[in-house]
Amino acid sequence: MAITLGPNQYGKAEVRLVTVDRDGPVHNLTDLTVSTALRGNLDATHLTGDNADVVATDTQKNTVYAFAKQAPVGEIEDFALRLGRHFTSSFEQITGARILIERHGWQRIDVGGTPHDHAFSRSGDERRTTAVTIADGQAWVVSGVSGLVVLKSTGSEFHGFPRDRYTTLAETSDRILATAVTARWRYRDVTGIDWSACHADARAALVETFATKHSLSLQQTLYAMGEAVLERRPEIAEVRLSLPNKHHFLVDLSPFGLSNDNEVFHAADRPYGLIEGTVLRDDAGDPGLAWHTLPAF
Amino acid sequence: MAITLGPNQYGKAEVRLVTVDRDGPVHNLTDLTVSTALRGNLDATHLTGDNADVVATDTQKNTVYAFAKQAPVGEIEDFALRLGRHFTSSFEQITGARILIERHGWQRIDVGGTPHDHAFSRSGDERRTTAVTIADGQAWVVSGVSGLVVLKSTGSEFHGFPRDRYTTLAETSDRILATAVTARWRYRDVTGIDWSACHADARAALVETFATKHSLSLQQTLYAMGEAVLERRPEIAEVRLSLPNKHHFLVDLSPFGLSNDNEVFHAADRPYGLIEGTVLRDDAGDPGLAWHTLPAF
Amino acid sequence: MAITLGPNQYGKAEVRLVTVDRDGPVHNLTDLTVSTALRGNLDATHLTGDNADVVATDTQKNTVYAFAKQAPVGEIEDFALRLGRHFTSSFEQITGARILIERHGWQRIDVGGTPHDHAFSRSGDERRTTAVTIADGQAWVVSGVSGLVVLKSTGSEFHGFPRDRYTTLAETSDRILATAVTARWRYRDVTGIDWSACHADARAALVETFATKHSLSLQQTLYAMGEAVLERRPEIAEVRLSLPNKHHFLVDLSPFGLSNDNEVFHAADRPYGLIEGTVLRDDAGDPGLAWHTLPAF
Amino acid sequence: MAITLGPNQYGKAEVRLVTVDRDGPVHNLTDLTVSTALRGNLDATHLTGDNADVVATDTQKNTVYAFAKQAPVGEIEDFALRLGRHFTSSFEQITGARILIERHGWQRIDVGGTPHDHAFSRSGDERRTTAVTIADGQAWVVSGVSGLVVLKSTGSEFHGFPRDRYTTLAETSDRILATAVTARWRYRDVTGIDWSACHADARAALVETFATKHSLSLQQTLYAMGEAVLERRPEIAEVRLSLPNKHHFLVDLSPFGLSNDNEVFHAADRPYGLIEGTVLRDDAGDPGLAWHTLPAF
Repeated sequence: MAITLGPNQYGKAEVRLVTVDRDGPVHNLTDLTVSTALRGNLDATHLTGDNADVVATDTQKNTVYAFAKQAPVGEIEDFALRLGRHFTSSFEQITGARILIERHGWQRIDVGGTPHDHAFSRSGDERRTTAVTIADGQAWVVSGVSGLVVLKSTGSEFHGFPRDRYTTLAETSDRILATAVTARWRYRDVTGIDWSACHADARAALVETFATKHSLSLQQTLYAMGEAVLERRPEIAEVRLSLPNKHHFLVDLSPFGLSNDNEVFHAADRPYGLIEGTVLRDDAGDPGLAWHTLPAF
Repeated sequence: MAITLGPNQYGKAEVRLVTVDRDGPVHNLTDLTVSTALRGNLDATHLTGDNADVVATDTQKNTVYAFAKQAPVGEIEDFALRLGRHFTSSFEQITGARILIERHGWQRIDVGGTPHDHAFSRSGDERRTTAVTIADGQAWVVSGVSGLVVLKSTGSEFHGFPRDRYTTLAETSDRILATAVTARWRYRDVTGIDWSACHADARAALVETFATKHSLSLQQTLYAMGEAVLERRPEIAEVRLSLPNKHHFLVDLSPFGLSNDNEVFHAADRPYGLIEGTVLRDDAGDPGLAWHTLPAF
Repeated sequence: MAITLGPNQYGKAEVRLVTVDRDGPVHNLTDLTVSTALRGNLDATHLTGDNADVVATDTQKNTVYAFAKQAPVGEIEDFALRLGRHFTSSFEQITGARILIERHGWQRIDVGGTPHDHAFSRSGDERRTTAVTIADGQAWVVSGVSGLVVLKSTGSEFHGFPRDRYTTLAETSDRILATAVTARWRYRDVTGIDWSACHADARAALVETFATKHSLSLQQTLYAMGEAVLERRPEIAEVRLSLPNKHHFLVDLSPFGLSNDNEVFHAADRPYGLIEGTVLRDDAGDPGLAWHTLPAF
Repeated sequence: MAITLGPNQYGKAEVRLVTVDRDGPVHNLTDLTVSTALRGNLDATHLTGDNADVVATDTQKNTVYAFAKQAPVGEIEDFALRLGRHFTSSFEQITGARILIERHGWQRIDVGGTPHDHAFSRSGDERRTTAVTIADGQAWVVSGVSGLVVLKSTGSEFHGFPRDRYTTLAETSDRILATAVTARWRYRDVTGIDWSACHADARAALVETFATKHSLSLQQTLYAMGEAVLERRPEIAEVRLSLPNKHHFLVDLSPFGLSNDNEVFHAADRPYGLIEGTVLRDDAGDPGLAWHTLPAF
């Protein structure tokens, strides 16, 4: 029997990079969490501890900070592509890179009706994300949102499901539907894309569809949300959605002589439903390594 | 030697209550985390396990849900007062109650420029809070905000501090200042207050002062923020602020031949500074038990 | 109306200090989270931004690290006392200090039956804690444990509680009782104490009593646990316990034609009960500032 | 252009199941977090909201609880296989299942040297895990550990890495090496395996190798750990390891006139290195869907 090294990668995770664009009195803020991972011919360090091929994770971190100074960070997709291409082009043994970036939102503080020049407040937990993969000279971009929590207080039903000996759930024609959207969409190309406009349109398609689509199941809502993204932006080939069903249980108030017409709910933590699905064009094309290392289902 | 029972309380923590106001097609959403704690003559259960005086924590939870149906929840301060007074007036042995409520923010989803009737998105981690104490027939209200994360990219200095043998920090006349505001303010009265207006004004005073006050220390900013709250609302007697100094360290880019004129920062997790202080009117009066059980400094 | 500064303090929170005692081939590991807070005449920085009295929090952090080298850290109580006394004796304006330390547990990795010289695994989330307060030359020590999760699968009852219109809870003579113990005990003195032996005995008293005391309520268990600590160590004057009741709900299997004789449970996250109480000697004496800034109830 | 549904699955996540084996006075405790996910012909619910094929996630949860009563839970691998096969054999449209189980550790409380019959304390954050995949009648088992935090205070070097313009890291021949092991191993078969013995041996191989292998890089340690698992248990075909490099930075004490011979460290939170790799036999065989949906690298 012989034992060998299989697929591997290494890098620096969760570099917390904040940049301030100080061209003039109105500052712009960029707040990112960047993770880099490199792949390639890394047998030596695993087998003998010879690190001649190991671009130190500390060096990867330094590169993130230096790149943020050498040119404006700009769109997270472009920044990730620049980083990934740098690593794969600078070191012969590094043949692949995967760069994950989350952008945290800030809004200007409003002072007496005027947005402040250099003071900001955090927008919440929602992040704009990108995952860029570089391998053997090719590049793929998958962008998305995460932590986007939405709820509708009506317009959601769930019935007609099969009943076996373990089924106790009542059918309902009116329930709260709540989820924390993690969406990722694969771009057809990596050049010539207006990343911000695509993000804005995709996000709007997701939340507007969640709001307006009458829901017979969270699966139906998921499909409609993905479909709306594809209809809105031809640059996007495929959408993957992961939607926890954050259960809001109607509280039984009958012991207290009270009705409860979908008015009082207990918001539960665990367990939760988890609905995951892909919506894609029939000409979506081969995804290649676009989804490599991203959560799969 | 004799051993005795000292101060004690018990209750149900973190009841997750969501209510939907369905009067008409436009729904209103209330999302609260409610914790109740009761005090009183509770020696028996501690000493012998006789529970005749123990209003079960399950009963406390049920009461929260039932009260949410019996009348509109309304302002969190009023809801907390109603709950606290119910427990202390319904059970002879229960002489005190402390009700903590956090309100989580939701905003209507915008669909093509129109706020949706019954679909919402979470506003982030900021919570509006209240802590109501009832003891021997008296009541106190301390309200506030928590999780309000703010940052200014300039307008903050820190210098002139003493230097001893353990001091290495450089003086600076320009740094990022960032914090997550936890503010609590004590009301003079518990009746006749427009709780929402006070909250809105106090919050605005906090963030506007953070933005506009040129800062020589986070302590100075803290005091100015508290002062602004007191100046804005005469109903408020005292403000307590807990402000972590969320350090953003300038990255040393000189090894890469790059300058860094307050442009590229590393946002650190730990350790962090923690600045805590009280700002009060000189006629603030005896706080009584208003602050009892709240984090002290 | 005049506005003034009230109680305040500031410091560095959560300094993550790890030390290795390398005297000889057998290493000893100390893993601490240290928070320092200073009090005193700090009006100037709050009112005018004059920092001449502000011992920088960065200096406080440096001091923690330097002290860890200048002498062995030793017991966390002694290390906290040394730090607190240093700050209050080195700076005239600093009249008080509060030092919080958590010690994280590590055990030696066992290799073929032999404990390894310099390799360790984390013992879990339980921490040994201390909170030292210095004010005007006096010192107080409150030590404890937190994150100590215990469960008993029988030997716990809960019945005899009052029933009102909001009570639905069934009485039970057999339930799971589970909690995550946060205990703090106040020492009579700050010198001449064998801190480690006291910690070991107090911890043993807590868990053994939890295990062996037949429980009619979590309050009864709490009291017995505190009492056992006091009986075991005369150095301890007072014990405060905060015990979440981590509910394990019996799953109703009757719809599936199955009994459930306390065999299958759902472990719930929220809400949870929260039982807090003090057990003290009748000659416990004035606690002074021992408990200042610690969570109160 | 046509839009279609791609890969999808749905289920109930994080069912918190605790069972007590009460055969006799000595109780045994099982504490699991179970997540189920089903796959199959689920077009209708996505496209039209017709739920005739949707085994409700509530039903999945009920099944977990009922199965825990119908027969002893036993090994988590067997329990997961039973659940997965139940879903895929009971519903024609359900062709695949993925069952994830984490087992949380508890140990008996020691009372005066004797392990208690029915009182337990939590062992920490380490979990024994399994991921079982069923598809079209075939089954795969991948088991592992997560949250196993280990540290060695010497016996770790890192040097010889390439230096480019962004490299500032000093070479070291003595550093702290710390990580939180997530390991997963794929079994060749799904029957006839002594799951507990394999787990115990694999875990021992991991920690003993971490302790004893002199490390020139975390990659080398990773490979050695995987190799040791394979050498210990022929039932295992392949090991995948994800090892964060939890950096412990030597504190620069020179400004204080102090040396620091690897004695005083700052334990950093973020960023951290992340080293991931696969170690496998050359006759490991086709993994099929064993790793499907597990984090990839």
